[in-house]
Amino acid sequence: MARDPLPETDLTRHRRLREQGSLDRDDLDAILDAGFVCHLGVVVEDRPLVVPTVYGRDEESLYVHGSVAGRSLAAESPVCVTVTHVDGLVLARSVFEHGVNYRSAMIHGVPRKVTDPAEKTEGLRRLTEHATPGQWAYARRPSRRELAATTLLALSLEEASVKIRTGAPDDGDGPDAALGLWAGTLPLTAVWGAPDPDPLLQPGLAPPAHIARREGTRHG
Amino acid sequence: MARDPLPETDLTRHRRLREQGSLDRDDLDAILDAGFVCHLGVVVEDRPLVVPTVYGRDEESLYVHGSVAGRSLAAESPVCVTVTHVDGLVLARSVFEHGVNYRSAMIHGVPRKVTDPAEKTEGLRRLTEHATPGQWAYARRPSRRELAATTLLALSLEEASVKIRTGAPDDGDGPDAALGLWAGTLPLTAVWGAPDPDPLLQPGLAPPAHIARREGTRHG
Repeated sequence: MARDPLPETDLTRHRRLREQGSLDRDDLDAILDAGFVCHLGVVVEDRPLVVPTVYGRDEESLYVHGSVAGRSLAAESPVCVTVTHVDGLVLARSVFEHGVNYRSAMIHGVPRKVTDPAEKTEGLRRLTEHATPGQWAYARRPSRRELAATTLLALSLEEASVKIRTGAPDDGDGPDAALGLWAGTLPLTAVWGAPDPDPLLQPGLAPPAHIARREGTRHG
Repeated sequence: MARDPLPETDLTRHRRLREQGSLDRDDLDAILDAGFVCHLGVVVEDRPLVVPTVYGRDEESLYVHGSVAGRSLAAESPVCVTVTHVDGLVLARSVFEHGVNYRSAMIHGVPRKVTDPAEKTEGLRRLTEHATPGQWAYARRPSRRELAATTLLALSLEEASVKIRTGAPDDGDGPDAALGLWAGTLPLTAVWGAPDPDPLLQPGLAPPAHIARREGTRHG
């Protein structure tokens, strides 16, 4: 069933490169599900601060590990969370038309600190499973004390927008095509490597299937 | 010759996970040189905005393509530019000790709009060569009109800090080691693919050596 588009607001309206913009919720979900590290922007004493952190999501909310921005998120204040996947370089005939193929999601809002232990546990489960499916059932789950020591933020996915650029350079049908220069894209792909055991692990202990089977698969 | 460390300021002091922090200029340069997409944070009407964009650098400055944040950068205002490379997942025995191996640089300052045509050309050369070494000499360079249509920002590299996490999980010598669970890291690597020619290209035109030779090499 087709879902309603994301609402167009002052923050989600696409002003530049409108052809790259989308307010499609499926596009948003796909970009979020393809990664696990976001860039969290906050304002601290009138200055921006952009910190990388990990996230997960459910249907309505993004869950963000907030400890990285400890001091910044003491008060409830607006944030901008951006998730970007770089898919390759766009190599045009002219420097001016050079660019990047990418998928990017931007989410705006005032996050809520998750304090209820059950909700926090569920949020951390989402976050853990988002990065490593199968790991919540395998690893030791947070104790009450660990749960209290973790800062988890919930941010509504309602005010969000997406930008996507794919395909060839844009100067293939202009005067620069006559220059006879090679043009195209150089794709970039992230790939999971072989699990690297902790040197302190007892010898002979193999990684569980949910980790081992990721080796050689594409990420992003 | 050893270089002086980056100055410790209110913005560059490491408050959390100090063991991951660095003010080493060589670490900063290495992280910047390993990527070409940054996340640029600005404050617009008291809200943060985080946009992905491309960058290059020289010894003193970061050059950032600023058009993506057109309206936001009309006035000279503080920015935070963050560059992050994700090197893998840290899979500990306990969920609480899970994390990410990464290298991240954060640069603070008030950027200067580059207006002098010679300086702008040199900045764009740095930016182009940063993403694709050899491309400035190969592609058609910006015309006077294209130069005027490009927004380029220069940001001093003087107020910056670095965070790096490498290696195994931290719970290998604690009580959780007795759980008998596998623990280690799952490395993530970005690799350049085969050059994908523009469908509008005349058949038989091969990519130049500086592009073709990147296929299969590691990025980041």
